[in-house]
Amino acid sequence: ARPRVGYFYTGKTGKQLFADKMKKMKVEDYQSIPVVVNENVSVYDAIVTMFLEDVGTLFVVDDESLLAGVLSRKDLLRASLGKQELTAIPVNIIMTRMPNIAVCYKDDPLIDVAEQLIEKQIDAMPVVRKTEKGYEVIGRITKTNITKAFVSLAKED
Amino acid sequence: ARPRVGYFYTGKTGKQLFADKMKKMKVEDYQSIPVVVNENVSVYDAIVTMFLEDVGTLFVVDDESLLAGVLSRKDLLRASLGKQELTAIPVNIIMTRMPNIAVCYKDDPLIDVAEQLIEKQIDAMPVVRKTEKGYEVIGRITKTNITKAFVSLAKED
Repeated sequence: ARPRVGYFYTGKTGKQLFADKMKKMKVEDYQSIPVVVNENVSVYDAIVTMFLEDVGTLFVVDDESLLAGVLSRKDLLRASLGKQELTAIPVNIIMTRMPNIAVCYKDDPLIDVAEQLIEKQIDAMPVVRKTEKGYEVIGRITKTNITKAFVSLAKED
Repeated sequence: ARPRVGYFYTGKTGKQLFADKMKKMKVEDYQSIPVVVNENVSVYDAIVTMFLEDVGTLFVVDDESLLAGVLSRKDLLRASLGKQELTAIPVNIIMTRMPNIAVCYKDDPLIDVAEQLIEKQIDAMPVVRKTEKGYEVIGRITKTNITKAFVSLAKED
């Protein structure tokens, strides 16, 4: 029988323990609620939504609530420098659109999403559910979620 | 003598190994180069600098190169919505200023900085050196650096 000492020797190195533990951290345990806007809203309204909801990334959906695009604070800041009236430009003019959007799923290891955020130089990724028509947005993973996960690693029991 | 098997039993739990390892990760090993602007530059020039340098946070310094303020993408987006001419407003009107700026030092554990980023709801913190006159900015820690550190934990030898 296994001795009841609160820990036991697995024969694994610290490196393996780390890698195992991190692979068990799943997207659904760290994701935030997504904030979405319809593709026909104005850039001005999107900026207001971003401030009201206090998020750095908005997901854009079509009339069927399927993922159509992503808007970052950087996209909106760039648009705000232009000469056009922000209430007159719909977000679908300036958003990053499918198929150029990186997505993830609730069962993905968080570490894989973290790697993609770094590699693609983006701040956030939508967590999606695939349907016949397209992607439904069910969550949001940002560098803030990853930072919280990093902190939790040092603290958890 | 310690057996030469590539690993050995320390009597520590996985939790302790994690906490120990993470406390050894120091700011100086993960920081980025800071991007600074003088407090008299215009909001417009700051936004241009942010795009040219591709950073999400600028640090503002006075004529003695000492830390005077912080500008986030959010601060600049808010300013860009106003009616004023962006080339006519100096950044020191809209920046977060001392003493309301959280700073860190190169020897600080990265985990402590990560916790502060979460707690204070900010994206970045200047790494400073304290002098008699004030703080010199020597680095920058962002949620991107924390995300990279998180990825490195799973990969390192």
